[in-house]
Amino acid sequence: MIIVMSPASTPEDLQKVQDKILQAGLQYHLSKGEFRTIVGVIGDKKIIADLQMNAFHGVEKTVRITEKYKLVSREFHPQDTIVDIGGVKVGEGHLAVMAGPCAVESMEQLMEAAQCVKKAGAQFLRGGAFKPRTSPYDFQGLEEEGLQMLRKAGDAAGLKVVTEIVNLNDIDLVCKYADVLQIGARNMQNFQLLKAVGKAKKPVLLKRGLSATINEWLNAAEYIVSEGNEDVIFCERGIRTYETFTRNTLDLSAVAAIKELSHLPVIVDPSHGTGRWQMVCPMARAAIAAGADGLMIEVHPHPEVALSDGDQSLRPVNFEHLMEEVKRVAKLMGRE
Amino acid sequence: MIIVMSPASTPEDLQKVQDKILQAGLQYHLSKGEFRTIVGVIGDKKIIADLQMNAFHGVEKTVRITEKYKLVSREFHPQDTIVDIGGVKVGEGHLAVMAGPCAVESMEQLMEAAQCVKKAGAQFLRGGAFKPRTSPYDFQGLEEEGLQMLRKAGDAAGLKVVTEIVNLNDIDLVCKYADVLQIGARNMQNFQLLKAVGKAKKPVLLKRGLSATINEWLNAAEYIVSEGNEDVIFCERGIRTYETFTRNTLDLSAVAAIKELSHLPVIVDPSHGTGRWQMVCPMARAAIAAGADGLMIEVHPHPEVALSDGDQSLRPVNFEHLMEEVKRVAKLMGRE
Amino acid sequence: MIIVMSPASTPEDLQKVQDKILQAGLQYHLSKGEFRTIVGVIGDKKIIADLQMNAFHGVEKTVRITEKYKLVSREFHPQDTIVDIGGVKVGEGHLAVMAGPCAVESMEQLMEAAQCVKKAGAQFLRGGAFKPRTSPYDFQGLEEEGLQMLRKAGDAAGLKVVTEIVNLNDIDLVCKYADVLQIGARNMQNFQLLKAVGKAKKPVLLKRGLSATINEWLNAAEYIVSEGNEDVIFCERGIRTYETFTRNTLDLSAVAAIKELSHLPVIVDPSHGTGRWQMVCPMARAAIAAGADGLMIEVHPHPEVALSDGDQSLRPVNFEHLMEEVKRVAKLMGRE
Amino acid sequence: MIIVMSPASTPEDLQKVQDKILQAGLQYHLSKGEFRTIVGVIGDKKIIADLQMNAFHGVEKTVRITEKYKLVSREFHPQDTIVDIGGVKVGEGHLAVMAGPCAVESMEQLMEAAQCVKKAGAQFLRGGAFKPRTSPYDFQGLEEEGLQMLRKAGDAAGLKVVTEIVNLNDIDLVCKYADVLQIGARNMQNFQLLKAVGKAKKPVLLKRGLSATINEWLNAAEYIVSEGNEDVIFCERGIRTYETFTRNTLDLSAVAAIKELSHLPVIVDPSHGTGRWQMVCPMARAAIAAGADGLMIEVHPHPEVALSDGDQSLRPVNFEHLMEEVKRVAKLMGRE
Repeated sequence: MIIVMSPASTPEDLQKVQDKILQAGLQYHLSKGEFRTIVGVIGDKKIIADLQMNAFHGVEKTVRITEKYKLVSREFHPQDTIVDIGGVKVGEGHLAVMAGPCAVESMEQLMEAAQCVKKAGAQFLRGGAFKPRTSPYDFQGLEEEGLQMLRKAGDAAGLKVVTEIVNLNDIDLVCKYADVLQIGARNMQNFQLLKAVGKAKKPVLLKRGLSATINEWLNAAEYIVSEGNEDVIFCERGIRTYETFTRNTLDLSAVAAIKELSHLPVIVDPSHGTGRWQMVCPMARAAIAAGADGLMIEVHPHPEVALSDGDQSLRPVNFEHLMEEVKRVAKLMGRE
Repeated sequence: MIIVMSPASTPEDLQKVQDKILQAGLQYHLSKGEFRTIVGVIGDKKIIADLQMNAFHGVEKTVRITEKYKLVSREFHPQDTIVDIGGVKVGEGHLAVMAGPCAVESMEQLMEAAQCVKKAGAQFLRGGAFKPRTSPYDFQGLEEEGLQMLRKAGDAAGLKVVTEIVNLNDIDLVCKYADVLQIGARNMQNFQLLKAVGKAKKPVLLKRGLSATINEWLNAAEYIVSEGNEDVIFCERGIRTYETFTRNTLDLSAVAAIKELSHLPVIVDPSHGTGRWQMVCPMARAAIAAGADGLMIEVHPHPEVALSDGDQSLRPVNFEHLMEEVKRVAKLMGRE
Repeated sequence: MIIVMSPASTPEDLQKVQDKILQAGLQYHLSKGEFRTIVGVIGDKKIIADLQMNAFHGVEKTVRITEKYKLVSREFHPQDTIVDIGGVKVGEGHLAVMAGPCAVESMEQLMEAAQCVKKAGAQFLRGGAFKPRTSPYDFQGLEEEGLQMLRKAGDAAGLKVVTEIVNLNDIDLVCKYADVLQIGARNMQNFQLLKAVGKAKKPVLLKRGLSATINEWLNAAEYIVSEGNEDVIFCERGIRTYETFTRNTLDLSAVAAIKELSHLPVIVDPSHGTGRWQMVCPMARAAIAAGADGLMIEVHPHPEVALSDGDQSLRPVNFEHLMEEVKRVAKLMGRE
Repeated sequence: MIIVMSPASTPEDLQKVQDKILQAGLQYHLSKGEFRTIVGVIGDKKIIADLQMNAFHGVEKTVRITEKYKLVSREFHPQDTIVDIGGVKVGEGHLAVMAGPCAVESMEQLMEAAQCVKKAGAQFLRGGAFKPRTSPYDFQGLEEEGLQMLRKAGDAAGLKVVTEIVNLNDIDLVCKYADVLQIGARNMQNFQLLKAVGKAKKPVLLKRGLSATINEWLNAAEYIVSEGNEDVIFCERGIRTYETFTRNTLDLSAVAAIKELSHLPVIVDPSHGTGRWQMVCPMARAAIAAGADGLMIEVHPHPEVALSDGDQSLRPVNFEHLMEEVKRVAKLMGRE
C-alpha cells in the first residue's frame, strides 16, 4: 500500500502514520517528493488490507498495490486450469457450449430444446428451475419439478446439465440433478451462497454481477475456491451502462482481462449480454475470437411463447447457424 | 403495452400479433401512422407483462406503459406511510437518524458509540454483526456475539437497533436482537432473502442496489410487502458510476423519485454514498433539504482503528456538528 | 508517480526504468516489498506527467500522485474566489440565481420570463441563442437576433445576461451582448473553445461534461485560467448513468468535491440535472444545502409551447415558490 | 409519438392535449386501457419531434416511436455503403486497417511507423497533428508541421492519411494534407465542427463519444450527411463505464447495432477502447468477428518514448502478429 500525505500534513501527522504501521507489525519506506511525501507499506498483505489509513489526519489518499485474491490468480497458478465435467472439458483447447431455454417450462419444451442443441453441437443443456425475477409477479420457475425435467432431458439427449441456484438451502437438491451449479449475476456478491457452493462437490459457473468490476468478480471466485472448490468457470454476461439500445453492454475485454489475471476458464453469454436475438450470433463469434473458452446461449423452440426472455432467445434454426459460424472461428483459435 | 411494428413488417406479421393478443384474453387498438403501425394492448397488466412480443416477426420494439409494482406505489396508496418502530416514527414530519459504526467490533467500542450518537440526537444505533465483504479475507463480523452487543448497547443508551441480515437462515436470530432488519445493497435483488424478511414481523430498511434503477428498487420492496410486511423504509446509499473521486455517486434525486412514486419513507446514507468523511455533513444537509425522512451515518469513536470503512466514518465531535446542522435544515422542512 | 513492477519483472527491466527516470532529469526511491517492487518518481510534475512508463517491459501499473491542474486548485489558492459580474457577486456569502428559458424564442417570451425571474429574486437572465441539439432537425436557435433580445430583456428587467457560446468564431459577437459566457456540457472538452474564452474578458460558466470526472472538469477550467481568464464558475448539471427515470443523475457531491479541490465558485442546474420539472425545487434546495453558490433554473412562461426542454421548465408561479424555499435554505447557509 | 396520460388526469387535460395535436397539424388515435389512456400521435415526424407534451398537465410520460435521423438509416438506404478513399475501399467485403502513432512526433518516428504498418498490410497511416488533451500542460501536437510529415510519410510508404481535426477553422488546412478527416470522441457532439466537415470534400471518420448512445452517434453522423457529405465511417472506441481495469469499455455490440440501423461502414479502435496494449490483439480479432469493416490501431516504433498513449501502443513486431491473426478472421468473414 502507498500512502500519500497531504501537502498540509504536519510532521506529527506523519509520525502517527509511521507508528501505526510499525504497531501493525509492518514496515515502511519514506519518499519525500517536491509536492508530496509518500509512505510505502511493506509486509503481510492481509494485515495491510485491514489498515484504515485514510482515517488518519494528514493522509490525502491511499493506493492499493496488490489485490486481495490469491488462489484464483495467475500469479499463484500460472498454467491454465481445465475444468472437467464428467469428461467434458472447459478450458484451453476446448469449445464449451451451454444452450437451452431461459426457464424450464414443460417437459415437451425441454426435450425439443435438448435435441436441437445437442444436434447442433452443444455439450450442456441450460435451463432455469429457480428464476430470480425483478418483479414478484413474474414467473418464478418450476423448482424441483423443473430440475427433474432438466435431468431427464439432458440424459435423453446426452447433455450435461447446468442450472442456477438461488437459495443456499437448495444446494443438496440442485446437486442431485445438475452437473454444474450456476451463480447468477444478481447473486455474484451473495457471499453466503458463494461459500455454500464452495463446499459443494460440483463445478460452479460464476456469472459476472450487473455492475461488478473485474476485481470484485475475481474476489467472488476466491470466496468459492477458498472453501475448497477449485472448479470455477467465469461467465461474462454484459454489464450495466447508460446505453439502452442493448439490454446490457457485453464487455468482451473482460475475457482478455480474466485470461491475464486468472488461470480459470471464462465463457460468454451473448443472449443476456445483448438482450436482442439478432445480435447473439455476431457477439458469439466475437467472444470466441477474443479468446473465450465457450458460450452460453438461450435457445427456445418457440420464443414467442416463452415465459421469460423470449426477446433474446434463438430459434433452433438460428442456433444451428450460429454453431456453424462459431466452430469456424473456434478452429482458428485452436479449439475443438 | 405498446407494440411498434417494423416498416418492413407484412400484414401477416400484424395478424399474428393481433391473434396472440386475443388468445391471451386481451384487447388491442391499432394506430397506423405515416411510418409505423402501433398496436396498443389493453387488459390485465400481469398477463400483458408476460407477453413475449419482441419474439414475433415484424415487431420492432415494445414499450411498457404501467409498472409491475402495485402495493408500494403511491397510485395504490396516496397518503404517506409512517413506519412506527416501537414508538419511534419514520416518515412525514419526523427526522429519523440511525448512526453507529460500520461493524460491531467490541462492547467497549459500541458502548462509546451508542452514548455519543444518543447524546447528539439519533434514535437508532446501527452496526454490522454480519458483514458482506468483497474479499473472503476481510473481517466478516462477530455474528451472534455482535448482535448481543448491539442489543445491550442500544438498551443502555435508549436506542433502537438496526442491523444487516445476509442469510435467510438467520432471520429468527436477528429478529431476536434487532428492531429493524437491514437489507444491504448487494442483497437488494436476493429475492429469497426479500421474501423471508417479508414474512418477518420487523420493519425492513431496504438499501438501494449498487446499480439498481428506481424501478428495480420499488419492485424489490414489492417482494417484501407482497409477503405481508408493510413496514419498508428505503435507503439511498449511492450508485455506481464512472466517477472515482467518490466511492459511489449519491443520487439525491432518488429521494424525490421515491416520494413521487411511493408512499413509503426514504432515508439517505451519505457515508457509503460518498466514501469520504469530509463529504458526509454537506450531503446529510442536502439529503434532508431534498425531502428525505432521515439519515444513516457511520460514526466510530476511533476511525483509524476501525475494522471496516474507517475512511468514511465520522468522529463523535464531527457527528455532533452534523446533527446541529441537520436539525436546522429539518426544522425548515417541517421535521422534528 | 508510483511505478509498480510486475512480480515477473527482471533486474534488467528495473534497470531500464531507473535509467529512463534519470535521463528525464528526475529522481526515484526504490521500495522492495514482499510481492512487488515499487519505484517512486520525484521531480517536476510536468515532466513526470509525460513519462510513458506503462510501455516498459516489467511494469505492472503506474499511479499518479499529483494532479496536473494547478491554477484552479485550492492548494495553489487557499481562499475562496468570488467572481464579480458587474457588481453581482458569485461565491462565498452570496446566492446567485440564473433563470430563464432554455432557448430564446421571441421578444415577448423573453420579456415575460425576465420580468418574472427578476421579481422572484434572480440576478441573471439565461437563454440560448445558439442551441447544441442532438439532431440536426431540431431548433438550433435565433443566433444574433436571440442575443439582441437577451440583452434588451435583461436590461429592461435589470438582469445580467448569461448565454451559451458554441463556436469559437462567435466570441466577439457573444461578448458584445452577454455578461457571462456559458460553455455547455457537450463542449467541456472542446479545448479550442476553452482556450478562446480563456482569452476573452468575460466571466465563464463552465458546465460539467455529460460524463466528465471531477478531475477532467478541473482540467477544463485550467485550460481557461491558464489563458489568463480567472473568472470561472463551475456548474454541475447531472451526469450520465444507467438510471433512466431522470434525464441525468444530478451529482451534488460534486459541489463538495469542487469546494475541497478548488477555490472557484460552483452552482447547480437541477433543470437539466433531473429533466423533470417536479424535481427541480427539491434538488434546488438540496444544492444550496450542499454548499452550492447558486443555481441555474429553466423558467418558461408557457412550457407547453417551448421549442426545447419544456419538460423540465418551471412555470413562473413554481419558480417563485422555489425561490422562497431556496432563500430560506440559503439563509441557513449564510448566503444572501 | 405515444402520450401516456396519468390516471389522475382529467377529461380537460386530455382535451388540451388533443387540441394541441390538432393545432400542430397532426392527428391522433385514442386508446383507453384499464389503467391509462394512451394517445398515439400521427403525422410529420419533424413536427412531432418538437411537441413539448410532457409540459402538459395530466401527461405521465411520452414515448418516441421513430428516430430523428434519416439519411444515415438503413430504412432510408437498405444497401451497405462502401466508402471509396482514392481507390481504397471501406465497407462490405473489404478489411480497412488504419495504423500509426497516437501523435506525430518527428519525421523519423513517422517514417519508421509508416514503413512498418505498410509492410504488415495496413492501407492508412494514422497520426495526430492536433491533439485534444485533458490537461493544457500535455503535448498538444505539432500542428501544420505534423500534417506535412504525415503526408510525406504516407506518400513514401504508399498509405492514405487519416488525422484528427479539432478546430473548424483548420478545415482547409487539414484537407490539404489528409485523405480522411477524423472527428474525435470529445468532438462527437461539437455540432459546428460536424457541420463544417459535412461541407468538406473528404471522407469523415466519426469516433463515438465517450458516453454517446448509439442514437446520438447516428444523429451526429446525420449532421454530417445532411450537409452533403455522404462518406462517413463510424469508429467504435470504447465507452465510459464504472470499470477501471481498462481505460474504456470496448462495446463491440455497437458494431452489430450500426450494421442493423445504418448503411454506413463501421470500424473499431481497440487501442483506445482498452488502453492496454496486451488486449489490442484479442479485441481486434473480436471486432472483425463481430462484423467490423476495419480497425484503427496505435503503433509506435518505440512506445516507451511516445509523447502520448504509449501504454496502449503496439510495437511493430506485435502489430505484424496482430495483422496475421486478423487477416485469418477477416477471411472467414469474407473480407480481404
